[in-house]
Amino acid sequence: MTLATAEALDAVDPLAHYRGQFAQPEGVIYLDGNSLGQLPLATVAATHELVTQAWGERLIRSWNEGWIDAPQRVGAMVAPLIGADANEVIAADSTSVNLYKLIVAALRIDPSRNVVLSEAGNFPTDLHVAEGAVAAVPGAQLRVVERGDLAGALGDDTALLMLTHVHYKTAERFDMATWTKAAQDAGALMCWDLSHSVGAVAVELNAAGADMAVGCGYKYLNGGPGAPAFLYVAKRWQDRLHNPLSGWMGHAAPFEFADGYEAAPGMKRWLTGTPSVLGLCALESGLALWDGIDLSQIEAKSAALWNIFHAAGIAAGLECITPTDPVERGSHISFRHPHAYEIVQAMIARGVIGDFRDPDILRFGLTPMTLSHVDVWRAGQILGEIIEHGEWQKPQFAIRNAVT
Amino acid sequence: MTLATAEALDAVDPLAHYRGQFAQPEGVIYLDGNSLGQLPLATVAATHELVTQAWGERLIRSWNEGWIDAPQRVGAMVAPLIGADANEVIAADSTSVNLYKLIVAALRIDPSRNVVLSEAGNFPTDLHVAEGAVAAVPGAQLRVVERGDLAGALGDDTALLMLTHVHYKTAERFDMATWTKAAQDAGALMCWDLSHSVGAVAVELNAAGADMAVGCGYKYLNGGPGAPAFLYVAKRWQDRLHNPLSGWMGHAAPFEFADGYEAAPGMKRWLTGTPSVLGLCALESGLALWDGIDLSQIEAKSAALWNIFHAAGIAAGLECITPTDPVERGSHISFRHPHAYEIVQAMIARGVIGDFRDPDILRFGLTPMTLSHVDVWRAGQILGEIIEHGEWQKPQFAIRNAVT
Repeated sequence: MTLATAEALDAVDPLAHYRGQFAQPEGVIYLDGNSLGQLPLATVAATHELVTQAWGERLIRSWNEGWIDAPQRVGAMVAPLIGADANEVIAADSTSVNLYKLIVAALRIDPSRNVVLSEAGNFPTDLHVAEGAVAAVPGAQLRVVERGDLAGALGDDTALLMLTHVHYKTAERFDMATWTKAAQDAGALMCWDLSHSVGAVAVELNAAGADMAVGCGYKYLNGGPGAPAFLYVAKRWQDRLHNPLSGWMGHAAPFEFADGYEAAPGMKRWLTGTPSVLGLCALESGLALWDGIDLSQIEAKSAALWNIFHAAGIAAGLECITPTDPVERGSHISFRHPHAYEIVQAMIARGVIGDFRDPDILRFGLTPMTLSHVDVWRAGQILGEIIEHGEWQKPQFAIRNAVT
Repeated sequence: MTLATAEALDAVDPLAHYRGQFAQPEGVIYLDGNSLGQLPLATVAATHELVTQAWGERLIRSWNEGWIDAPQRVGAMVAPLIGADANEVIAADSTSVNLYKLIVAALRIDPSRNVVLSEAGNFPTDLHVAEGAVAAVPGAQLRVVERGDLAGALGDDTALLMLTHVHYKTAERFDMATWTKAAQDAGALMCWDLSHSVGAVAVELNAAGADMAVGCGYKYLNGGPGAPAFLYVAKRWQDRLHNPLSGWMGHAAPFEFADGYEAAPGMKRWLTGTPSVLGLCALESGLALWDGIDLSQIEAKSAALWNIFHAAGIAAGLECITPTDPVERGSHISFRHPHAYEIVQAMIARGVIGDFRDPDILRFGLTPMTLSHVDVWRAGQILGEIIEHGEWQKPQFAIRNAVT
């Protein structure tokens, strides 16, 4: 792979025009959009307008001028990216809080099924939240097994199979249709965490027959730090599942101020407290860029970027732990190296921002919307130089940050 | 009360300089700061800086440059306003979600105490959330009684007395020390919802010996629409109470990415998912205005504003349902009228923004930081004119909004 080839790919890239719609810090090649997506330039005006006009000038009146419906409106914008209908998705709270809601709800359907099954090494908060959720349902338990043992662990007692579609470390992707069917054949529900797949690959929840899902707004959707998350419940379940975090915004008639809780119909019941309006505004602005996008172009560009950076990593002698077949992965790439932390720090010092994951993983997000092929080619060159010249051995690169 | 008197009060008001630090929409007198606080002018720059610099330029690096500690930092800024120590308060999620955490945690201390006791007519989400929380603990139940029956309902089975310090409709205030002692004398814990009291009156949680509390960031604290909420746990309970919403941000070592959950020490365990950084930024900016403020001046000005508007309402023939003794109330005033909705709409049409609460209540927030005595005097004049001239009878004022 040469610079000329990367330039040629950029010249015919149908997504090339998106890159200029994001703030691109001088001297930075940002390979961490899978951790915190970049700032869409339109979001600067959107949030300023929200603060100064909707909040500053219209004040409380804004609740009747767009705020109250924002969770549904934003959910409907996520829907086409995950193969769902608009009225199957709502934006709310954090991924962790939403997972708790769905796990508890799933466990309450049938007391004879009381096991939540998941994978060892899943993103930690999924397992932590599941620990908390099973404690809220008598007899329920969490069973965590290695990936290879998942199929065998599905059984008569499984209430829910909870998997992260694309693995946060390795980028390995579960086949959604296959695993959804496996769970349902065992009589269980299937819950997908889409945090590392929404906006990275084409997700088809309804085609796969999935039951429930959650996902993150601040990665590929570019919704901003700590953006609201979303949740999906297939239409056939919407009347039968109940939010354990029953709050006023999920009430059928919140402004009648009744003492007793009555769940709203549809997805609204998954709301709990007053939604984060600033967060929803930024997320809505980020999602606007996805309007009408062809997800097959996202996948194709992701694969092209991946090939460029994979070649650079292999040439530098790194061990790639991400599958080489694009249908088996998301849109990031991870390598293993005993000095992964120091190499990531040395790259950051050179303006290439990726991240380190314990204990020995270098992880790089290859976000099709914000990166050019040349960006990724340049980042690969820098990675090669840092390893070839031993730049990462400087003592300052061994100092650990609070968030690594 | 005359205009001249109001002007004289403004001339000697030690808090007068705060009013100019908020966006004051042209032609508006805003008596709804108890529902959504006004925009501090400094927040425009703070949120713009966060979006363009911390997010746009620094990107993921900002987690190590202030974001990761924002929940504790913001909590510490709330602490002096509620009579707590800095390490007893943290900002997180919504009031509703935080209440769920604390109620479940309290119910799990002693299985022989399984009743959550609260007041009929409490803010609805408190009761809705409590319904959900008791369902998460075997044998637990919610008992809701009239205010006059609360003392008699405390007993050997009470795990938690959960009260809203200042009532959202009437502004009636519980005596915090008396009710905390009553709960504890019965062997129960005391949880206060401070949503309508923080920033409205001097709250003294530790002096009262309270066990736990939650509160809202978007009312008197001016943190913006849907701002993060806060929670307080008295130091003596911090090791013994566990967050049922066990997520990665409450883990002792979130970036070690371990499968098993281990609660962080101190208040950090009450975090769940990734915090709303935009929301925290706006809340922090709003809280900065409270630095070093004398809460007795807030209370004194609240009383003065109240007297002005109370006189106007009484003169207009309205029935006041808020206690006349300042120590028995918060910083809003409510009147009853069979056409409360229409009168509130007619006032909004004249630029005086208050709100309506089902079925017949006109509610007006008298926020000492953002209002002058003359503002409130003018609003009182307009209220009088609308009732005297029957302005509220115009048909357009009967049309209901989604959020009333």
